[in-house]
Amino acid sequence: MGCETQPIEIANAIIGLVNELPDTYQFTFFCSSDCLEGLKPPSKITIQEASEVILMSDDPLVAVRRKKDSSLCIATQMLKNGQIDALISACNTGALIAAANLFLPKLPDIDRPALLTLMPTMKHAVAILDVGANPGAKADHLAQYAAIGIAYQKSRDIELPKVGLLNIGSEEGKGTAETREAYKLMQQFQSMFIGNIEGRDVFHGDIDVVVTDGFAGNVLLKTAEGIASYILYEIEKDSGISGNLDSLRKRLHYAEYPGAIVAGVEGIVMKCHGDGSPTAFRESLKATIQLLSQDFLARIKKELELLAF
Amino acid sequence: MGCETQPIEIANAIIGLVNELPDTYQFTFFCSSDCLEGLKPPSKITIQEASEVILMSDDPLVAVRRKKDSSLCIATQMLKNGQIDALISACNTGALIAAANLFLPKLPDIDRPALLTLMPTMKHAVAILDVGANPGAKADHLAQYAAIGIAYQKSRDIELPKVGLLNIGSEEGKGTAETREAYKLMQQFQSMFIGNIEGRDVFHGDIDVVVTDGFAGNVLLKTAEGIASYILYEIEKDSGISGNLDSLRKRLHYAEYPGAIVAGVEGIVMKCHGDGSPTAFRESLKATIQLLSQDFLARIKKELELLAF
Repeated sequence: MGCETQPIEIANAIIGLVNELPDTYQFTFFCSSDCLEGLKPPSKITIQEASEVILMSDDPLVAVRRKKDSSLCIATQMLKNGQIDALISACNTGALIAAANLFLPKLPDIDRPALLTLMPTMKHAVAILDVGANPGAKADHLAQYAAIGIAYQKSRDIELPKVGLLNIGSEEGKGTAETREAYKLMQQFQSMFIGNIEGRDVFHGDIDVVVTDGFAGNVLLKTAEGIASYILYEIEKDSGISGNLDSLRKRLHYAEYPGAIVAGVEGIVMKCHGDGSPTAFRESLKATIQLLSQDFLARIKKELELLAF
Repeated sequence: MGCETQPIEIANAIIGLVNELPDTYQFTFFCSSDCLEGLKPPSKITIQEASEVILMSDDPLVAVRRKKDSSLCIATQMLKNGQIDALISACNTGALIAAANLFLPKLPDIDRPALLTLMPTMKHAVAILDVGANPGAKADHLAQYAAIGIAYQKSRDIELPKVGLLNIGSEEGKGTAETREAYKLMQQFQSMFIGNIEGRDVFHGDIDVVVTDGFAGNVLLKTAEGIASYILYEIEKDSGISGNLDSLRKRLHYAEYPGAIVAGVEGIVMKCHGDGSPTAFRESLKATIQLLSQDFLARIKKELELLAF
């Protein structure tokens, strides 16, 4: 509810995907009673009615505190109670973060959840966090994001993930008071911490985790999206270049899917891209099923405990 | 001095360009006495010796205060005194900003200089500031950057420049305390202020000025550079795309030249890209000559006075 796409469109797209999955997967749609009128879901889909809707324009914290019967609040509570194993939403990002923050326990030694997304590079994908949960992150939050990122990449079988702190220069003293303090705190990760990095270093593929506050991380993610569209436009105009751009376009539209993990809380919470298009939802669902099948939450908790930072 | 390229290499590249220019242009090289040994400059080039060098690793403020006989400090003082009309440097960016801040008067109503750079978009170029001068900008600095950006684009004959505040969402309440306050302050620019924008909006070409703090602006600039390299790599690998990428590559390497203007001070100060390659220096010189021939400083001052913000 609350995203730019009509719930019935999303529901139909999800039903198409769900029908391809084994019956061991059960699904719940959280939505207003009237928005799925006429829908005939298969038996493995349950509909959980919500009487309130959190809008994109709502103040996140106020909305989550007051609209207890919204689809978001009901779903987060059911995740907490173990009635569902994972939650996917394309709602107001701030509200999703606020609900995860308020209702779900944090993982060991983590104070604040971060939005974690994977981006492709010249080698394997890099995990970037935070891409928008906490715009004014403090130094200790940044160090915690490093631990989450390390645990996440270890759970993806990268033995010694290399972590960079996004900054405006590579020298130790660069940046703000928070990045300078975070640089010191991140020494505890020893050889896994490679120091300050710049936006241009992110895509070489030599870094596994990029740590940044939610403001700069969001700028990075959305600039990447904007530049990719711009370059495709330039290529189309360039008479010296020919060929089929579909494959390239698909690879570059990564900012849209599979979405971002709300990392650092006890629960699998996936933020689908804001427009909540049927495609974006399907990709988020596929990514979530992969996290579940890999027992992601248990692995990241184990890795965080081993880090004992 | 102090950049990654040997001064003699830069000098030779500049001499090549200078020889093509009319004799009304006079040039001064600021450098250590030994670094241009054997160079035979034409008569319109003077060499001004400096006994100290500010290194990339130096603390900017300390270096500028203590190394008074560095090429940077001597040149900035000569700019202040009207002995030169413009200054180009590829030195330690922080030191260049600090020297401009300490030695040059500010433009009317401006407290802090910003690094302003132009980036290409689907339409005409967008001015982005700050891309790294002031990582922890306050709300009033951001409003001042808007005024500088408006004045700059007006001096480039854009009648009513459209200004966007870089943020993590388009709604008014988004972002940090500083962006929320800046949003209010920027209302004074009336219809020229179009509100919050995201990284993906920068490249459509519908915005003339992007206002942001030096941290996020630097991330934007360098991410654009990193993504451009990555996409060129993907295109080269893509068997479905063929052609000559030289023209595209040249257009996308905008992060390297013509550099960034240290805007907001009484003087034309151009920051050449950090690697200070001969190509980057030549492009910075060409851009600086254009600013001089357009009487840039007088125009931006006049526009700032008309804004009377």
